Amino acid sequence: MPKLVDHDKRKIQIAEATWKVIVEDGLEQATVRKIAKTAGLSVGALRHYFSTQSELLLFSMELVSERVKQRAEGKNFEGSPMEMVTEAICELLPVDEERRIEMEVWFVFSAKTLVDAKLEALSETVYSEMHQGLRNVIELLYSLDLLKENLDLDVEIDRLHALVDGMALHHLLHPATFMYEKMIRTLTYHIETLCKGSL
Amino acid sequence: MPKLVDHDKRKIQIAEATWKVIVEDGLEQATVRKIAKTAGLSVGALRHYFSTQSELLLFSMELVSERVKQRAEGKNFEGSPMEMVTEAICELLPVDEERRIEMEVWFVFSAKTLVDAKLEALSETVYSEMHQGLRNVIELLYSLDLLKENLDLDVEIDRLHALVDGMALHHLLHPATFMYEKMIRTLTYHIETLCKGSL
Repeated sequence: MPKLVDHDKRKIQIAEATWKVIVEDGLEQATVRKIAKTAGLSVGALRHYFSTQSELLLFSMELVSERVKQRAEGKNFEGSPMEMVTEAICELLPVDEERRIEMEVWFVFSAKTLVDAKLEALSETVYSEMHQGLRNVIELLYSLDLLKENLDLDVEIDRLHALVDGMALHHLLHPATFMYEKMIRTLTYHIETLCKGSL
Repeated sequence: MPKLVDHDKRKIQIAEATWKVIVEDGLEQATVRKIAKTAGLSVGALRHYFSTQSELLLFSMELVSERVKQRAEGKNFEGSPMEMVTEAICELLPVDEERRIEMEVWFVFSAKTLVDAKLEALSETVYSEMHQGLRNVIELLYSLDLLKENLDLDVEIDRLHALVDGMALHHLLHPATFMYEKMIRTLTYHIETLCKGSL
């Protein structure tokens, strides 16, 4: 069904144009007109794929979450458990341009969910998915008998999740102060403190 | 100088109306017209206090940071070092309605700094001030000889800062999932892990 493939491809192209507008000009500038122009389409052609701006925004945000999941699933993690875990968590951090754009878009979108109840369900779903991903990380370390005794695993998952999002935010907002190196150093330090034989 | 006091009071009243509009309708709705209406002023009267929208937004954001500082400075911390430290850090978390509004405004503003270079300087200043505040917390624990040996204090400050902002964000965005109790539990747990005789 080449037509269907083209249809999906075009939707993704439009979603990526939406990201570009959000990152460069902010969410309030992400009008159908501007997104169509950035995607090299007429407004009418864009409306063929998305009949409302809400629908377009929602699809664009779902694509961010989809990309993160695809990358995590398609990955062959290698190395020591510690390296694997660090690499997996880096999927949730703005470690390169691609992820930086995704997270910036996600951050702007999250701010919007505070005042737009329609967006809450997606925001909640993604939060749960990230939480589950980080639960998997902690449970992997536990199953390999690497974690210190007496850790409260539920609190550890909440703590890791807040730390990861806080670091992502700080690196996005203050890249010259909370630099890439600091972000990675803080992450590896944190993982080490959870493991036996460390601090 | 009663007139000057009135002038300042009125500016604060307008800034608080700005917060209200941002929290209820989002930053893109925070037009001079809407803020004037919320503050019960004419647009002309508002222009007497702030000649541009940027000036008004900047003042409103500075007021958030000012309030946090005032509260921290005006406080008589009591109890054990652990209680004092927890209480001090709670000034940076959305633990009640007043702080929730301030942080929501700050979060929306931070998303805006990504696309508006004019706002970056203030965002950077507040980041440094918060960082310094958390440095004071870690150094207090260190000076009281409560911290575990071998901690890397610089990394601990970065880690605490990211954790605090991540928790604030999660509680603002997902109050029913990452509840108040979880936020406080995660914070006290984290402080305990830094201290001797714990995990």
